[in-house]
Amino acid sequence: MKNLTKIIVLFLLISLTSCKETSIDKTIEVDSNIVVMEYSELKRVEPLNWWIGMKNSELQLLVNEEGISNAKPEITYAGVSIEKVNKADSPNYLFLDLNISESTNPGKFNIIFKFEDGSVKKQTYELKARNKSGKDFKGFDSSDAIYLITPDRFANGDTSNDVFENLNEKKLNRSHDYGRHGGDLRGMIDHLDYIEEMGFTAIWPTPVLTNDMPESSYHGYAITDFYEVDPRFGTIEEYIELSEKMRAKGLKLIMDQVANHCGSEHWWMKDLPFNDWVNQQESFENKEPLNNSNHRRTTNQDLYASKRDKKEMTEGWFVSAMPDLNQRNPFMAQYIIQNSIWWVETLNLGGIRQDTYPYPDKDFMSNWAGAIMNEYPNFSIVGEEWSLNPLLVGYWQQGKENKDGYVSNLTSTMDFPMQRNIVDALNETESWDNGLVKMYEGLANDFNYVTPKDILILPDNHDMDRIFTQLNKDVVNTKMALSYMLILPRITQIYYGTEVLIENSAKLHDHGLIRTDFPGGWKGDKVSGFTGEGLSSDQKEMQSYLKKILNYRKSSKAIHEGETIHFSPFMGTYFTFRILNDEVVVHIINKNDKPITIDLKRYAEIGLEGKTLKNIITGETMVWQDAIDLKQKGSLLFTTKL
Amino acid sequence: MKNLTKIIVLFLLISLTSCKETSIDKTIEVDSNIVVMEYSELKRVEPLNWWIGMKNSELQLLVNEEGISNAKPEITYAGVSIEKVNKADSPNYLFLDLNISESTNPGKFNIIFKFEDGSVKKQTYELKARNKSGKDFKGFDSSDAIYLITPDRFANGDTSNDVFENLNEKKLNRSHDYGRHGGDLRGMIDHLDYIEEMGFTAIWPTPVLTNDMPESSYHGYAITDFYEVDPRFGTIEEYIELSEKMRAKGLKLIMDQVANHCGSEHWWMKDLPFNDWVNQQESFENKEPLNNSNHRRTTNQDLYASKRDKKEMTEGWFVSAMPDLNQRNPFMAQYIIQNSIWWVETLNLGGIRQDTYPYPDKDFMSNWAGAIMNEYPNFSIVGEEWSLNPLLVGYWQQGKENKDGYVSNLTSTMDFPMQRNIVDALNETESWDNGLVKMYEGLANDFNYVTPKDILILPDNHDMDRIFTQLNKDVVNTKMALSYMLILPRITQIYYGTEVLIENSAKLHDHGLIRTDFPGGWKGDKVSGFTGEGLSSDQKEMQSYLKKILNYRKSSKAIHEGETIHFSPFMGTYFTFRILNDEVVVHIINKNDKPITIDLKRYAEIGLEGKTLKNIITGETMVWQDAIDLKQKGSLLFTTKL
Repeated sequence: MKNLTKIIVLFLLISLTSCKETSIDKTIEVDSNIVVMEYSELKRVEPLNWWIGMKNSELQLLVNEEGISNAKPEITYAGVSIEKVNKADSPNYLFLDLNISESTNPGKFNIIFKFEDGSVKKQTYELKARNKSGKDFKGFDSSDAIYLITPDRFANGDTSNDVFENLNEKKLNRSHDYGRHGGDLRGMIDHLDYIEEMGFTAIWPTPVLTNDMPESSYHGYAITDFYEVDPRFGTIEEYIELSEKMRAKGLKLIMDQVANHCGSEHWWMKDLPFNDWVNQQESFENKEPLNNSNHRRTTNQDLYASKRDKKEMTEGWFVSAMPDLNQRNPFMAQYIIQNSIWWVETLNLGGIRQDTYPYPDKDFMSNWAGAIMNEYPNFSIVGEEWSLNPLLVGYWQQGKENKDGYVSNLTSTMDFPMQRNIVDALNETESWDNGLVKMYEGLANDFNYVTPKDILILPDNHDMDRIFTQLNKDVVNTKMALSYMLILPRITQIYYGTEVLIENSAKLHDHGLIRTDFPGGWKGDKVSGFTGEGLSSDQKEMQSYLKKILNYRKSSKAIHEGETIHFSPFMGTYFTFRILNDEVVVHIINKNDKPITIDLKRYAEIGLEGKTLKNIITGETMVWQDAIDLKQKGSLLFTTKL
Repeated sequence: MKNLTKIIVLFLLISLTSCKETSIDKTIEVDSNIVVMEYSELKRVEPLNWWIGMKNSELQLLVNEEGISNAKPEITYAGVSIEKVNKADSPNYLFLDLNISESTNPGKFNIIFKFEDGSVKKQTYELKARNKSGKDFKGFDSSDAIYLITPDRFANGDTSNDVFENLNEKKLNRSHDYGRHGGDLRGMIDHLDYIEEMGFTAIWPTPVLTNDMPESSYHGYAITDFYEVDPRFGTIEEYIELSEKMRAKGLKLIMDQVANHCGSEHWWMKDLPFNDWVNQQESFENKEPLNNSNHRRTTNQDLYASKRDKKEMTEGWFVSAMPDLNQRNPFMAQYIIQNSIWWVETLNLGGIRQDTYPYPDKDFMSNWAGAIMNEYPNFSIVGEEWSLNPLLVGYWQQGKENKDGYVSNLTSTMDFPMQRNIVDALNETESWDNGLVKMYEGLANDFNYVTPKDILILPDNHDMDRIFTQLNKDVVNTKMALSYMLILPRITQIYYGTEVLIENSAKLHDHGLIRTDFPGGWKGDKVSGFTGEGLSSDQKEMQSYLKKILNYRKSSKAIHEGETIHFSPFMGTYFTFRILNDEVVVHIINKNDKPITIDLKRYAEIGLEGKTLKNIITGETMVWQDAIDLKQKGSLLFTTKL
C-alpha cells in the first residue's frame, strides 16, 4: 500500500512539472481512488473540512505528519490562498493560515507538501457549500425546555457498538456506577417521539466525542479526539441523523463542548505541537507532581487576586486525568474556535453548552464566544459557572458592564443560585426569613442580570444530587420546584429521568448513581419510562404532571416573554404571575398541610377579579373572586385571558 | 402674660400703620424684651434658624400656631423674599417658601403674620453667617476608624440630667436592660481623651434628640422633636461642645439621623399638618389595626415586585411605636432635608449615619442625600442597608449603574455581608469551601461595589450580638476578626466596649444587653475601661491590641488608600497585603493550633524577599526570607518599606 502510494505520488510529481496547475486538480478529482489513498498519506488535517461563505474568511489548518515542518505547502484553487505557514515546536506539525475569498466555489482541492528531500505529499481538502446562512442558526431561548441526557445512561439503541477491543476501556459494566452502560446516539434517536411528546423543545446530550480513557470514559468530558464521535456512542452519521430527526420535530440539538481540557489519552499528548500547548506541560512530561486548579473561580472577578491565584486557577488542571489546554497559545485558541464552528455547521446545531466556563483563559473565552456569535448572530451558548453567587453568574453574561471591563460574548449562564434558593425554600419551615422567602428574595436578584430570561434554571444536572433526592423524596415538593422553574423568566433545563423520579439518596453526591439508567432504555428492562410499564403511581403522576406543564409552556408567550409580578410570601403561600398582552399565567405555591383560604384582594392589581381561570393540570375552571381555597399542599397553575 | 402680649401686639400694629417698614425692624431690635415675648407668641417655626451663603437659596419654614392658616406673612429684610405661602390641611400650619439672595447680610428679622381679624403675630428669625464654606465640611473616609456609642450606656457625666418629671419615661433604671441608665453627652465629652488615645478618629453616637416615649426611650430612634436634644442627654450647647472638643482633637462627629419615622409621641402627632404627613395616618387616627412594614427590602430593587409589596415596604411602619413619615409629601421632604442640613451646620458635622435606609421612599432618599452632598460636596453619609446580599448593599452606593436607573447620592453603605463572612470564616472548621475561604471569596465581591473603600465594615453594632459573643468568646478569633477588618479597604466602625470584650451571651439578640454599660462610665463602677482598674488580663490585652492597630492605622496610607492583594487560604492560613508606594502592610491569619511553617515563595510577587518587617503589635522585627514560622493561632500584622 505504501509503495503504491509512492508510485502515484511520483506520477503526480511528473504531471505537476508538465501540466498547468488546473489540470492537476482535474486529474485528482477524476480518479477518486487516488484521492482516498492520498488522503491517507497525512496523519491528520483539521478541521476535517470547511465551508465557503463564512463571515470570517480565515482558516487555520493543523497538519500533523511525520517531519512535515520542513515541507512547503502549495494550494492551487481559485479563491484559496496560503497566507502564512507556521512551524510548531514539534517537527511533525504545520499550521497553515488560509484565506478563502467570497468568490470561492465549493469543492475539493489538493494541498501539496513538497519536502526538502524532493518528496511530495498531498492532502485533499474540501470546502463545502453551506446549507443555510449563519443568521439562520437559531439558538435556544426562554421558549425552550431542554432535556439534558447522559447518553451512556439513557438508552442502548445499538448493542453492536457496546464494546471496541481497540479502545482503552474495553468492558461494558452496567452493574458498576462508573462503568460504561451502553447507551448511545441510536438510543436517543429511538426515543425522540417520547421526548417531543413530553413537551421538551431541545436536547442537550453530555459530550459524545471520543473519550478513549482507561476508566470512567462514559461521562464524555475527557475528550481524546475533538473531531471524532466515540464509536461506543455511534458514528458521526448517527449524530447528524439525530440532529436532522430532531430538527424535523422542531427540537434543537445543543452540543456540550469542552474548551478547558482534554483527556490525558488525547492523541496529541504523545507529540505535542508546542511546548506550551498544554499548561504545566513540563510537569506532566517529567512526571513531576502536577498542580491541579485551585478551583478559586472568584479570581476571574476579584480585583485583589494575586497573580499566583489567577495562574493556579487558569493553568492548573481540572483533574489530573485532564490536561489543561493553553488557550493563550494562538494556535490552540484557533483550533478550539474552529472546532466549535465545525460542529455547529456539521450538526446544524441549536446551541452550545460550554463546560467549566471560568477555568480557561477568560480573554480567550470572550474571543471564542465572540467568534461563534459573529458567525451565528442568533445562536445561543450557555456557560457553566457553578456558583451560588449571583455576582459571578451575572459577570459572564454578554452586555454586563463589568468593573474590570471584561466583555463577555456569552448569551447564557446557569442559575445555580436560584436552584439552591428553591430547594432551601421548600425544605425549610416557613418563617420571616426562611422558606418561600428564599424564592421570593432570590428571584429579586434578577436586577443583577442583563437578561434574566436568557439564563438557564435547572432542578439539578449530571453533577448534582437528583432534585427528588435534594427534596428528601417529597413528591409534592418536587412538583412545586418543577412547576415554579417552568414558569420563571428563564430557559429551563431538566435532567433525564426527573419525570420518573430517578433519585440517588442511597449514595449522596455519587456521580455514577446520579446518572442512573433511564428505565426502559435497555432491552429486558422490566420498568419503562417510555411505555409506562411498571412505573409506580408516583412516577406516572410526575410524568403526566411535567408533560402537561411542558406542553402548556411550549406555546405560552407569557412564560417565554411576559412580565413577571410576584408577591411576598404570605401565610405559607407564594403567588407569581406571568403576563403578556391578554395571557396571564398564575402560579401559586401553598406549603400548608391544612386547608387555607386566601383573600384575593391582596392580588387586585393584576386585574383578575371575576375572570375564569383554567387549571393547566386538571383542566378544571374556577372564577377568581373574593378568595381562593387552597385545599392541600402543592402548586396550582392557572391560565386566563385578561 | 397673654394679655400683656396682646397689648404689645396692639402697640406694634399701631406703629406698623404709621412707620416705614425699616423702622419697625429697628424698633423690635432695640427692645429685646419685646422680641423675646413676641417669639413666644408662635408655637414653632422650623428650622430654628438658617444661614446665608448656602448653595440652595430656597428655605421653607414650617410655622405652627393656632389658626395661622388665615394669616398673611410679611418679611421686610434686604435679600429675603417670601416666594409662596402654602396652607396645610390643618389650620394651624403655614409653610413659607423663602428666597435668600446671595447678597443677604446675616442678622435677625421679623416675620409679621397679619390675621383676618386684624390681629398680628410676629416671629423673630435669624440668618447666621457660616463659619466655613460647604466644601470645607469634610466627611469620614477609609482613613477613619469610627467609635460607635450608645450614649445612654457609655458614661453618665452629669447625674443632674438623669430624670425629668415632665417627660414620659420618668425613672432611671440601670438594672433594667431597656431602661434609661443615665449616660449622656457630658459622659462622652469627659472621655474624649480615652477615645482619641485608643486611636479612633471619629465618633458616631446613636441619636440624642428627644425621645419623649413612655418606654425604651434610651435608644433614641423614636424621635419626638427633630430640633431638640433630649434633656436626659444634655443640651444643644453640650452637643456643640462635644463637636468642638472633638474637632480640636481631629475627631469627626457623625450624627445618627432618622428620616423614615418618628416616635409616636412626636409633638406633631396631635395635630398633623397634612392628611398624608404620616403614612397610614387614617388607621392610626381611627385606631384601626396598623400595617407595619413587610420589611421586604428587596422590593427596592426587585423588577418583579408587586405594587402591593412596594407599598407595604415603604408605607408600613417600622414598628407600631414609630409613625412612618410620608416623604412623598413635598413639605415633609423639605422638612427632613432642611433638618439634616441644619444639624450639619449647627454641629459642624463630619458625617451622617442614616437609619433604615431602604425604608423611606427611595426617590426621596436620593434627593435627600443629593441635597446634602450638593451643599457639602466633600461630606459623607452612610446608610444602613442591613442585608447579607452584596447586590442590595452595592445598589445604594453613589455611582452604581443600576438596572432600574436609580441614582443614589449616598457615599457609603455598610458591609453586613462581609461581617458575616468573617464571623463564619473564623467559627468554621477549615475545608475547601468553609472557613477562611469565606473571607477570601467574600472580599472578592468588592468588584460589585463602586468604591469599596468608602463602605463601612463593622464587627457588630448596637443591633447585633457583640462580636465576642458571635465568636463564642474566643479572644484569639476576636482579635483576628478585628485586625482583618482594620486592614481592609474600608471605613472601620467599632462599637464601644469591644475593646474590653463586652459580650451578651447570657441573652442572645437582647438589644438591651448588647448595649451594656461601659465599665467605668458610672461613679462607683468597680471596673473601669477608662483607667484599666479591675479589667481582666484578656480585657487589658484586647484593649492594648486594638489601641496599637488603631494608632498604626491612623497614619497608614497603605491601609487608607493602598492596593490590596490577597492569596487563597492555604494550610489554614490567609495572607493579605496592602501596598501604597513603598509602604507594605502584611496581615496573616493563622488558624492552626499547632506550629506551622509556610514557604514564602508563594508570596514572591509582593517583592518582600530579604526585607525587614516590623510587627505592629510587638514591635519586634523579622526578615522575610524563605519561610515563616507561625507558632500559634492568631493574626500577625507587619509593616515594611519596599
